[in-house]
Amino acid sequence: MYIKMDFSKISEKLVPANYLKLALDSQKSREIQVKELLDKRKLPENGWSDELIEYVVHQLAALDSNNFEHKAGLGEREARIACGLVAQRHYRFGHGIGRSGDLLEAQPKAVGSTILAQLTNALLLDLIQSMGVQSCKSCFLVPMATGMTLTLCFLSLRKVRPKAKHILWSRIDQKSCFKSMTTAGFIPVIINTQRSNEDEGLYTSIEEFQKKMEALNKEEILCIMSTTSCFAPRNCDNIIELAELAKKYEIPHIVNNAYGLQSTYYCHQIQQAQRTGRIDMFIQSTDKNLMVPVGGAIVAGFDETTVQNVAKSYAGRASSSQSLDVFMTLLSLGKTGYLNLSKARKNLFMELKQKLNVISKQHGCKVLETKSNRISLAITFESLSIDEPTKFGSMLYTRGISGTRVVASGCTKTIDNFEFKNWGTHEDLVSLPYITVAASIGITEEDINIFLRKFSDLLKKYKEKEQ
Amino acid sequence: MYIKMDFSKISEKLVPANYLKLALDSQKSREIQVKELLDKRKLPENGWSDELIEYVVHQLAALDSNNFEHKAGLGEREARIACGLVAQRHYRFGHGIGRSGDLLEAQPKAVGSTILAQLTNALLLDLIQSMGVQSCKSCFLVPMATGMTLTLCFLSLRKVRPKAKHILWSRIDQKSCFKSMTTAGFIPVIINTQRSNEDEGLYTSIEEFQKKMEALNKEEILCIMSTTSCFAPRNCDNIIELAELAKKYEIPHIVNNAYGLQSTYYCHQIQQAQRTGRIDMFIQSTDKNLMVPVGGAIVAGFDETTVQNVAKSYAGRASSSQSLDVFMTLLSLGKTGYLNLSKARKNLFMELKQKLNVISKQHGCKVLETKSNRISLAITFESLSIDEPTKFGSMLYTRGISGTRVVASGCTKTIDNFEFKNWGTHEDLVSLPYITVAASIGITEEDINIFLRKFSDLLKKYKEKEQ
Amino acid sequence: MYIKMDFSKISEKLVPANYLKLALDSQKSREIQVKELLDKRKLPENGWSDELIEYVVHQLAALDSNNFEHKAGLGEREARIACGLVAQRHYRFGHGIGRSGDLLEAQPKAVGSTILAQLTNALLLDLIQSMGVQSCKSCFLVPMATGMTLTLCFLSLRKVRPKAKHILWSRIDQKSCFKSMTTAGFIPVIINTQRSNEDEGLYTSIEEFQKKMEALNKEEILCIMSTTSCFAPRNCDNIIELAELAKKYEIPHIVNNAYGLQSTYYCHQIQQAQRTGRIDMFIQSTDKNLMVPVGGAIVAGFDETTVQNVAKSYAGRASSSQSLDVFMTLLSLGKTGYLNLSKARKNLFMELKQKLNVISKQHGCKVLETKSNRISLAITFESLSIDEPTKFGSMLYTRGISGTRVVASGCTKTIDNFEFKNWGTHEDLVSLPYITVAASIGITEEDINIFLRKFSDLLKKYKEKEQ
Amino acid sequence: MYIKMDFSKISEKLVPANYLKLALDSQKSREIQVKELLDKRKLPENGWSDELIEYVVHQLAALDSNNFEHKAGLGEREARIACGLVAQRHYRFGHGIGRSGDLLEAQPKAVGSTILAQLTNALLLDLIQSMGVQSCKSCFLVPMATGMTLTLCFLSLRKVRPKAKHILWSRIDQKSCFKSMTTAGFIPVIINTQRSNEDEGLYTSIEEFQKKMEALNKEEILCIMSTTSCFAPRNCDNIIELAELAKKYEIPHIVNNAYGLQSTYYCHQIQQAQRTGRIDMFIQSTDKNLMVPVGGAIVAGFDETTVQNVAKSYAGRASSSQSLDVFMTLLSLGKTGYLNLSKARKNLFMELKQKLNVISKQHGCKVLETKSNRISLAITFESLSIDEPTKFGSMLYTRGISGTRVVASGCTKTIDNFEFKNWGTHEDLVSLPYITVAASIGITEEDINIFLRKFSDLLKKYKEKEQ
Repeated sequence: MYIKMDFSKISEKLVPANYLKLALDSQKSREIQVKELLDKRKLPENGWSDELIEYVVHQLAALDSNNFEHKAGLGEREARIACGLVAQRHYRFGHGIGRSGDLLEAQPKAVGSTILAQLTNALLLDLIQSMGVQSCKSCFLVPMATGMTLTLCFLSLRKVRPKAKHILWSRIDQKSCFKSMTTAGFIPVIINTQRSNEDEGLYTSIEEFQKKMEALNKEEILCIMSTTSCFAPRNCDNIIELAELAKKYEIPHIVNNAYGLQSTYYCHQIQQAQRTGRIDMFIQSTDKNLMVPVGGAIVAGFDETTVQNVAKSYAGRASSSQSLDVFMTLLSLGKTGYLNLSKARKNLFMELKQKLNVISKQHGCKVLETKSNRISLAITFESLSIDEPTKFGSMLYTRGISGTRVVASGCTKTIDNFEFKNWGTHEDLVSLPYITVAASIGITEEDINIFLRKFSDLLKKYKEKEQ
Repeated sequence: MYIKMDFSKISEKLVPANYLKLALDSQKSREIQVKELLDKRKLPENGWSDELIEYVVHQLAALDSNNFEHKAGLGEREARIACGLVAQRHYRFGHGIGRSGDLLEAQPKAVGSTILAQLTNALLLDLIQSMGVQSCKSCFLVPMATGMTLTLCFLSLRKVRPKAKHILWSRIDQKSCFKSMTTAGFIPVIINTQRSNEDEGLYTSIEEFQKKMEALNKEEILCIMSTTSCFAPRNCDNIIELAELAKKYEIPHIVNNAYGLQSTYYCHQIQQAQRTGRIDMFIQSTDKNLMVPVGGAIVAGFDETTVQNVAKSYAGRASSSQSLDVFMTLLSLGKTGYLNLSKARKNLFMELKQKLNVISKQHGCKVLETKSNRISLAITFESLSIDEPTKFGSMLYTRGISGTRVVASGCTKTIDNFEFKNWGTHEDLVSLPYITVAASIGITEEDINIFLRKFSDLLKKYKEKEQ
Repeated sequence: MYIKMDFSKISEKLVPANYLKLALDSQKSREIQVKELLDKRKLPENGWSDELIEYVVHQLAALDSNNFEHKAGLGEREARIACGLVAQRHYRFGHGIGRSGDLLEAQPKAVGSTILAQLTNALLLDLIQSMGVQSCKSCFLVPMATGMTLTLCFLSLRKVRPKAKHILWSRIDQKSCFKSMTTAGFIPVIINTQRSNEDEGLYTSIEEFQKKMEALNKEEILCIMSTTSCFAPRNCDNIIELAELAKKYEIPHIVNNAYGLQSTYYCHQIQQAQRTGRIDMFIQSTDKNLMVPVGGAIVAGFDETTVQNVAKSYAGRASSSQSLDVFMTLLSLGKTGYLNLSKARKNLFMELKQKLNVISKQHGCKVLETKSNRISLAITFESLSIDEPTKFGSMLYTRGISGTRVVASGCTKTIDNFEFKNWGTHEDLVSLPYITVAASIGITEEDINIFLRKFSDLLKKYKEKEQ
Repeated sequence: MYIKMDFSKISEKLVPANYLKLALDSQKSREIQVKELLDKRKLPENGWSDELIEYVVHQLAALDSNNFEHKAGLGEREARIACGLVAQRHYRFGHGIGRSGDLLEAQPKAVGSTILAQLTNALLLDLIQSMGVQSCKSCFLVPMATGMTLTLCFLSLRKVRPKAKHILWSRIDQKSCFKSMTTAGFIPVIINTQRSNEDEGLYTSIEEFQKKMEALNKEEILCIMSTTSCFAPRNCDNIIELAELAKKYEIPHIVNNAYGLQSTYYCHQIQQAQRTGRIDMFIQSTDKNLMVPVGGAIVAGFDETTVQNVAKSYAGRASSSQSLDVFMTLLSLGKTGYLNLSKARKNLFMELKQKLNVISKQHGCKVLETKSNRISLAITFESLSIDEPTKFGSMLYTRGISGTRVVASGCTKTIDNFEFKNWGTHEDLVSLPYITVAASIGITEEDINIFLRKFSDLLKKYKEKEQ
């Protein structure tokens, strides 16, 4: 609760004054940390202790009216919490964030929740800028999955582009990404990725995009949706050229930066694309980038109004649980902590790639070169027959390796009446079966070593069987 | 974690066998409680202890792969949790619920989360049936506000009614309810409430609904949206007759039962309306009905496919935090606990009404008779001038009374280009200023008494000033 | 931690100033509660919320040097806590209480622990006075069992009575009470209780005490030890007359008030005995009177020096865990809470007695009348043979009844070379087998009803077997 | 609570069977860890996760009768816990350990507490043996300070040596150590330490011990008390020769190993002394050696009966809080974890010594060579005048350095009528003022570096002032 505990007149019967003075002096540095947070609204340089975090969270929760003493609730929503365990795990926050119809509005009955939400958004903005999108002007956390948040962005764009029907979309075989468009009621215009001379990865078909822009009625195009982070061998979309097209044709451009915030590379791409072209918003998930439980996304952009319009499209008051998770996590890591994790990930990615190259050569596999995919790697199995790949994946899982994905051509999938050939491969062309592995934030050297050992063992086993 | 602690061969050096036997016997009743939950998937009759709840939650969390020992994560989403405090408050659940594009799908990597979500939905179904909607067949929790959940329902309906543009809506002046339609991209057809001879409340204009159904192209009507729980003097919509119209004209009918699940009256209305007419889905918020923090809603219906189609429209994986809150709360209350709270609320509502009648007469006010509003009451101030009402409301708030709302005619509000005369009153006609108060679940006798004292004091003060 | 969170200059970007003001105003009542605790050092009238208690505890813990930021520990004892769970459960208190050789001394390195310990002692003094020992001048909590605390009191008395060898002791068949004397190295002079005309209980043999005082060299008598709370049919010792003897013969008098603090009757006896006679100290256990885990005792007395001498005899620094438990419990209950629990217990004792009388008559048993035992009751089984009693007790236990004790004459026990005839009965004479039951603080009506039902069932079963 | 959660018949509606199977398989390693703990009663090789520790603790607590469902308590002690926060922090353990008069006895009403206490003692025995006292046969935790535990050992010895009056004691200027003898009622025979040619430390005066043994009536000597860990320049007592004397003269020998368990050196001294001579018991504090909050000590010995006699002298039931802390800490560290901490400390001690040597030379100070003190170091200030030393100490403290002690000759102190010349120096002779610093378990390189910087700065400042 928010109270001042005044030791200034404390009796000598309790403790000698000189002892007390030293103890009180020692608290100054914490006081300064809290003051700076409220004043500057920036990520603290260094991470905070758990105690300090909980202290601030408790103080904020005490400002919500459901935690006042001597109050009476005569409304239909009074943030009563029936179960003590639930109250405790939410630090007695109950009112959620936003007011009906605007996620960013202050709640008179929930001052603490309001500050919590606003501070979280401010810290996120600082983080996004620190990771490389320096021109980012505004962002906010939405307590929904990235897919649903993309849906919300599309719905919000419709209000300013009422005739729009289509979304131009660089194909990525990830279901919720596709559903974000159909659920919003738009018709995806699917533009297949293509091979290139540059390396073995899949690239954005800029020509195809341009053709479609020319072909369609501009007013009927809601926006372009591109993707940064994705499974190899798909590369990060060429968002710089897409942004130029968007600018030229005056079509909004939304970037699905799902787990790209963890990587300065993807962030720099966004920054540069916006500098020379047009990006309206870029969306990222909180769980994958910030290591919190699933359930939130961040909408960020370069113009305050565009971003706030999305916030104003959310119908109703929303959960503050995701803001709380992000708030606590950011304070716990501090700017240095996050940047260090990000750097460590980058190095571990390179280590993983290099070691996989060695192992792959030993076993007749190949790590595909995909220059602008900085998180995921694909390794082809030249020698595996078509039905074995998925078995291979589940054998890895039973050996304690999670997150790898085995992909083979040949499977067609229909989602919301759209048909995808070679679902999973992001392209129509046939390719060799391959396995993807990722080095995402929080990965450790131990993870990599365990994986390499088990992967190598399994490949050996397969080879032996063959012979 | 899920382990069996086997005391059967424990050394006599630790404890004498006969002492141990008695202690182990005493654990049987808990074992049975857990077994019944898993087998029957029904609300337990009586509430569980905090310890038993946490035990089951810990056991489930241990089944999620992020909590396995000796595992290596090579994916882009591994449910790593960076901050210990965050991990703790989520009992180490990190994977959320559902899989991309279906909130009800099982997650191979998150068995515990899957069971948690499915069990929660099963308990909710039992609760809805117990509260009076016996024919309810299916329901699930969505971790979004009620408004956004309505949006999701509309978006899901569009897939089967692709030509639909309009939603027929019985006016209720609550912003997020209205935004749920515009955000989904539909045009609300606003049907004002009307006065009736029955009492002093506002009623659904059935004739107007019928007129519109005749006038519009049936295929272009997405659905009817009606509302049960609302601020007095608006009454619960006449959902029985609306359901009959819906059936007759073959138009889907969605009921906004925002905080109506707490009341057997509203639940019985839904049950009866469905029996003789048509209701496709009814939506309620978890916070207002189940006393958990804001952030979730329940989609319920009478046909499994209709309900599941909504689940399939949610793009992406969603937060499991709301399921966890509801799961713990329902186990903590048990069926008896919830029904008792519901009954207590009903009685306190009647007590509040009766005492308000007495006070109102003393001060020249009047409690409006609104027979089919069973949660909210409106009291007119005959003697207050037009600009005083809101001041009156804020004076109550500074005295510790939250949740009352003072409403006066005369204010026009525009939302998403739609204009509402006398915003807040649910009608175009001019009415006296009034204050609304509600007795919602969890209210106590003390709440009521504090309110009545302060309300009465304030009225007195006003009177004195006048003289 | 002890910090002030200053919202005064908070940005309007975070929350509107008028919303904040109301929220801050609402915190005043808590601020006053804390201020009063520090200023008055009295039990708060009403119990505190868990949040307020934890707030104060955290603030105090932050004042201990092991919780300072930026400190370096170069001593042999730095209150480092290796296990996070342990740190958490102790709120990061690590330094214990007292300094080598004085439990009441302030610790320069542990200001928070010092305040905690002193405040706890102050609250306990207020409680003892409120329960009826108004003249009590000083008390402190010792983190040891009541028995060991009695030992410490005896050891402390020896320093002022160096020639003392004997303790005059009114027999009570409770092992640790007896051991408290032998462990301290004194020779108990056992004075058997005796029957009286007053009722069916056992009484202090005042004559025998007087005889011993005359017979022994006064200097060789360390003190008298009497007992208030005990198992029926033993009554509370006649401490008023014993105190008179103690005064007359100038012999210290220590009262074992083990679980007597919960009863105003026993407290008034102590108050009156001291008024007309002599009591040097009275000792009570924290667990039985204050419903905290086992492990602490309170030494109280009417002269500050006498009490403090005991504190000065404790060699070493002691656990603060018991002080913390008592501190939190007393704040949680408040004075009213404790007095209500005490009153409820008294009433439930009378109810138990009355209902047992009814049942006993039905089954040929008898509740013994023991006027000055206000917690425990004894019921004789006239019809049970000598070897059955203990079986009867264990049958009750397997039926979920704990705490009853079945006693039969005839068993001799030797403790530290002293032989007790009819161990358990407090007397040499032979008596009928009986069962004791107690209504101690915290007992509920449900406890009593369950017991009566099972007791009655068991008696019926026995009767049937007989026939 | 102790229950088995049986997923074997779980409905496919909740989760697919193949997903579940993998999740259940992953729990096996935990099951094995728990099984081994119960079967072998040894320290686990590697530390456990917090979740596993809490799981086992909860399971044990569920076996105590106060946590049974459907029970009724009719005794005077029912382990009711009034305050929820207190219940929680003790994991609902309330019954303490031991039964009246024996700390090692099993409690029928508290099976979980009994197992907890016995397991803790078993793990401690394993730890003591692993640290080097391989012949140790028995040990147990006492929830009292080391000083009071020494008192208890003396009181227990008196029962077998009823004529004993004296304790032969190698002087160490630490108050609670001295009080442990006087509180127990014995007369300390103080044998001053002496200088030696070996190095600059203080040594046990073996001749003086022998003289006293010859001079006094052997039966009147209760025991020898020696000390291992202590402030430099006092060295560890020559316990090997003292043990030989003890054997020769058939006098019990008790070693105060206060914070010596953390050091394999001190442990090996004890092992060797017992091999060739006689040690009856050695006592160590839990907080200093195991990094738990203050409040416990361990009595260990080479003969089960001797050790158990001490347990049988504790009058009453004792707190289980200290056992719980130690249990959780030992599981959390594991054997490897503890041994690593111990080794790290040893290395940091050597680093501290070496760096201090360098700094001392720069500033005209000197690190005294004290070969058999392996934790504490003394540095003389040749240039400081007599009244400055303590000021120097408090200046360090205000700079965030805790635990150093500045000692100067010339002060006489009287404790319980015994007079000590040059209190603090452990000797009668005059010495230069010096400061002591210690590297105790848990110390970090950072602690050392902060200290050295501030120490060096302060010395510089003093020098400048002088000039």
